[in-house]
Amino acid sequence: MTEAGGSELLRQHGGRIDAAARLYPQAPTPWLDLSTGISPHAYPLPPIPPEVWQRLPLGRDLAALEAAARSAYGCPAGMVLVPVPGSEIAIRMMPWLVPARSRVGLLGPTYPSHAAAWEGSGAVVRPLSGLPPPDADDLDVVVLANPNNPDGRVVARADLLAFAERWGAAGRRLVVDEAFADVAPEVSLLALPALPPGLVVLRSLGKFFGLAGLRVGVVAVAAADAPAWRQRLGDWPVAGPACVIATAALTDAGWIAAMRARLAADRRRLDALLAAGGIAPCGGTDLFVLAEGPAGIDLVDHFARAGILVRGFAGAPDRIRVGLPGAEAEWSRLAAAIDLIPRRCAAAAR
Amino acid sequence: MTEAGGSELLRQHGGRIDAAARLYPQAPTPWLDLSTGISPHAYPLPPIPPEVWQRLPLGRDLAALEAAARSAYGCPAGMVLVPVPGSEIAIRMMPWLVPARSRVGLLGPTYPSHAAAWEGSGAVVRPLSGLPPPDADDLDVVVLANPNNPDGRVVARADLLAFAERWGAAGRRLVVDEAFADVAPEVSLLALPALPPGLVVLRSLGKFFGLAGLRVGVVAVAAADAPAWRQRLGDWPVAGPACVIATAALTDAGWIAAMRARLAADRRRLDALLAAGGIAPCGGTDLFVLAEGPAGIDLVDHFARAGILVRGFAGAPDRIRVGLPGAEAEWSRLAAAIDLIPRRCAAAAR
Repeated sequence: MTEAGGSELLRQHGGRIDAAARLYPQAPTPWLDLSTGISPHAYPLPPIPPEVWQRLPLGRDLAALEAAARSAYGCPAGMVLVPVPGSEIAIRMMPWLVPARSRVGLLGPTYPSHAAAWEGSGAVVRPLSGLPPPDADDLDVVVLANPNNPDGRVVARADLLAFAERWGAAGRRLVVDEAFADVAPEVSLLALPALPPGLVVLRSLGKFFGLAGLRVGVVAVAAADAPAWRQRLGDWPVAGPACVIATAALTDAGWIAAMRARLAADRRRLDALLAAGGIAPCGGTDLFVLAEGPAGIDLVDHFARAGILVRGFAGAPDRIRVGLPGAEAEWSRLAAAIDLIPRRCAAAAR
Repeated sequence: MTEAGGSELLRQHGGRIDAAARLYPQAPTPWLDLSTGISPHAYPLPPIPPEVWQRLPLGRDLAALEAAARSAYGCPAGMVLVPVPGSEIAIRMMPWLVPARSRVGLLGPTYPSHAAAWEGSGAVVRPLSGLPPPDADDLDVVVLANPNNPDGRVVARADLLAFAERWGAAGRRLVVDEAFADVAPEVSLLALPALPPGLVVLRSLGKFFGLAGLRVGVVAVAAADAPAWRQRLGDWPVAGPACVIATAALTDAGWIAAMRARLAADRRRLDALLAAGGIAPCGGTDLFVLAEGPAGIDLVDHFARAGILVRGFAGAPDRIRVGLPGAEAEWSRLAAAIDLIPRRCAAAAR
């Protein structure tokens, strides 16, 4: 497999620096992973008492996590927040908890696990390009991410709520993945006082808090649906240390506010850096930028040769998604790799 | 609610020291939790690099965990080991992955989550008292724990294999929960070279390694079933730190061998201590003892007043399950509470 051919693997998922290192053994190390939307500024770990590793998570530990999430996200009337071991597994379990009798509409393109989960359970998935979906008679579930990944597309909260009310009133289900709503709290449905029936909202702890290894998320569901989620997750859905860390992070309002401002500034800096290098930002959130490079340049391959992993897309070869660098040395390394782009382009044109 | 009435809550599950402390506010603290089968001798935590908390678990991290589990447990031909975020969630997901067309036979009494999972998914569960089950025509799934919890009952490996071969040949499924097989490796099916079709074996990391807060387990399934399990768990089924710790624990053959010997000695000591106090051991494994006290004494209540939580059983009021104390001070505290039993008994008889 050639390096250029191998880089196709890097257009399917983010976060695979082990695969990238195999494909580009000559690349400088350590790899700089900008292929995800995970914050480079991790929440500082609180001390974890030894017994938290040793004993089963206690009911009070899980209750504390739920209360912290309620305080951070809001919890509309009639809904309950259920902790899950990562929002990925909640996405995968969704077809089991929200059975689709006919078809699932998916506002795309979006995070690929949604389609994988539904298709893996035998459902037929119809891509949607907007809300409300035209010809929706064959759909009983609609899934969207808000803000969306990878393009940052936002459905305004009032518009989404209006759609949800009409949709839910007909007994249909709406799944909203708010994995990136920590940096766009104005779009979250969970800050509203009440929500229509049939709604499921997913939140993720790993991205905004920079702790993707933790595997903690929260599913907001109608109170009537909560027992089914809890029953199918069992009594210890989240690891004890993850409970302690997530509870501390969600209750740290000062850190959260300061980090929102910092990530917004970082994102403006990344937009400007990419634009100056001829890679035009065309979307994103304050945790990643979607950008389009000059036609004919394999940017995933270009950055990989510099030991920098960005996310490519099989269906859009000129686009990349770039996460935020953290330390100044990482910004410098990205800037240096961007500086090399025109020269490689000129060489290729000879 | 009176204390004695409240103690009924402690006959449903182990590990609820927070509930016990609410029910017995006068009890000495800290609570000594002997209500589970979790080892008091936790595997020492290896250093966890900060990036393991921050990044998504890498494919190589999960592959290392699978290889370590294969080396520790064995992995029969035609089977694959799939990491899961705790064997509890695997038990809960079982009806989704192993659909029962008709009825599920459950060799009981056993760990209550098995029945809860199947009944919660709408299956009809029939209790079985032995293998092979009589009148099995209406069953297409059989579930058992080996060794069993709470009584330590063992189905000899040769007998279980013979049953599994006949059962699987008819297209039926067998689920074997080996959560306590670390202290009875001679019963584990995973050390065999090959297994019949239709078999699922569950292993747990938390009990033997004393790290129940980790939430890591392994499901051994036919290679043909592995993609469905992986698909429904998603790409990051186990937290990054849990991967690192579990991999270290499973590869530490010296620690494992020494701990088996230590737990066997501890169990003999606990058997003797209970017997000397008039609580007759009637089952168990090297991680817990099932014992029967004199009729008419509420042992769960008795120990709770001393700040010691043991596991009671709603259907067998004279029986308790007692886990192993760790430090010498814990052994002394248990011995002191046992010493008080005859006096309370005499007082009750006045």
